[in-house]
Amino acid sequence: MESRAGVAATPGALPYYVALSQLLGLTVVAMTGAWLGLYRGGIAWEGALQFNVHPLCMVIGLIFLQGDALLVYRVFRNEAKRTTKVLHGLLHVLALIIALVGLVAVFDYHRQKGYADLYSLHSWCGILVFVLYFMQWLVGFSFFLFPGASFSLRSRYRPQHVFFGATIFVLSLGTALLGLKEALLFKLGAKYSTFEAEGVLANVLGLLLASFGVTVLYILTRADWKRPPQAEEQALSMDFKTLTEGDSPSSQ
Amino acid sequence: MESRAGVAATPGALPYYVALSQLLGLTVVAMTGAWLGLYRGGIAWEGALQFNVHPLCMVIGLIFLQGDALLVYRVFRNEAKRTTKVLHGLLHVLALIIALVGLVAVFDYHRQKGYADLYSLHSWCGILVFVLYFMQWLVGFSFFLFPGASFSLRSRYRPQHVFFGATIFVLSLGTALLGLKEALLFKLGAKYSTFEAEGVLANVLGLLLASFGVTVLYILTRADWKRPPQAEEQALSMDFKTLTEGDSPSSQ
Repeated sequence: MESRAGVAATPGALPYYVALSQLLGLTVVAMTGAWLGLYRGGIAWEGALQFNVHPLCMVIGLIFLQGDALLVYRVFRNEAKRTTKVLHGLLHVLALIIALVGLVAVFDYHRQKGYADLYSLHSWCGILVFVLYFMQWLVGFSFFLFPGASFSLRSRYRPQHVFFGATIFVLSLGTALLGLKEALLFKLGAKYSTFEAEGVLANVLGLLLASFGVTVLYILTRADWKRPPQAEEQALSMDFKTLTEGDSPSSQ
Repeated sequence: MESRAGVAATPGALPYYVALSQLLGLTVVAMTGAWLGLYRGGIAWEGALQFNVHPLCMVIGLIFLQGDALLVYRVFRNEAKRTTKVLHGLLHVLALIIALVGLVAVFDYHRQKGYADLYSLHSWCGILVFVLYFMQWLVGFSFFLFPGASFSLRSRYRPQHVFFGATIFVLSLGTALLGLKEALLFKLGAKYSTFEAEGVLANVLGLLLASFGVTVLYILTRADWKRPPQAEEQALSMDFKTLTEGDSPSSQ
């Protein structure tokens, strides 16, 4: 909201890529809902339909919202850094809560049905991703939002935070694909090979999930689309330079 | 081999990460072989065992060799750029040929058994990855090895080549995990949930595949581990600067 002198121009193609990512993300959420509604009887917290809460929550939380949380620094390029940070943290909290509901749903469903827990590669990856995601949030919060961490500590941790953030996002996508495949094979079995409508729909959903991931990571990693340092941060890094006379961030 | 003045020191931790990546990569190949040998009757080109050629070739080609091809610019930091490029290109060719053998094996096996082709998400992703990988190789070859592309054209294409290279590697890993899951569920079915030895082995293999990918991408993306520009390239970029007086690579 706050406009200020020295606002950097948004790169020309960025809005189109962001729009594409949102289109893909929303399509993936809608298609997951359509798949569960059309072929799996819909969603309910009680009874056999409780399972269906799981894929929907995971796609909304650990795919769509997690992906969007990674994009806030590219989308809100000219907002105050602190506002953007808070939004980034909040989107991740929301994603975590929704994913937790999805986790509770599947464990509760398994308990009711007397099914074994945590035997499949999907479940192993899923638990790992959830724990890593929670830890990443805690460490990120303590370094970047909680006051206390020094400027140089933040600078040193930032690349690690970015790498592991992107990694956890990719692992979430991989886990979703494994879960989708599992759900298909359990129900369709040999019918999968006859190009059943549900199988084709789920395959397309899988490709769209991967496309959402690729688009988000492309926006995130393009060097010339990185958030420009702002007046306030530049002043800070100049102070830092004066204090230490060491290597400060390279923005002039 | 050629040592020269101005050789940059290798970052201290890099060799350990490279060693870890190779340990993980070789473990993944060995474990795939062990899985096929112990639980799937081994490997042969004729008959029912022909299927098993597929996972082994794909893991050797599209996982291990593709991953190693991405790492050559980090590992051979002080070799001539052209030597490193040729090695990068050759490793990818080798990976492509081995993957092609793996593809022929599975199509041939399907034909013998009268199974349908290309109905599953694994097969859709697999074909997509193979085509993208081949295209990336062709485009990379024409820009970087074939003489003709100008310095500025190469500079503009390089970031795209790197992004899509990493993306295709990640998609290969995801496709491998989907295939592993498919092979498990087709054979084990409900027994998967009783923690059968084969299921546990395959889950561990899946986690190791993901760990190999994360390690390779960590080495690849760490900014301070990038290949330093060398005397010959620096001279070239200085020439270029003199010619154009535009924005040249930032190395002094």
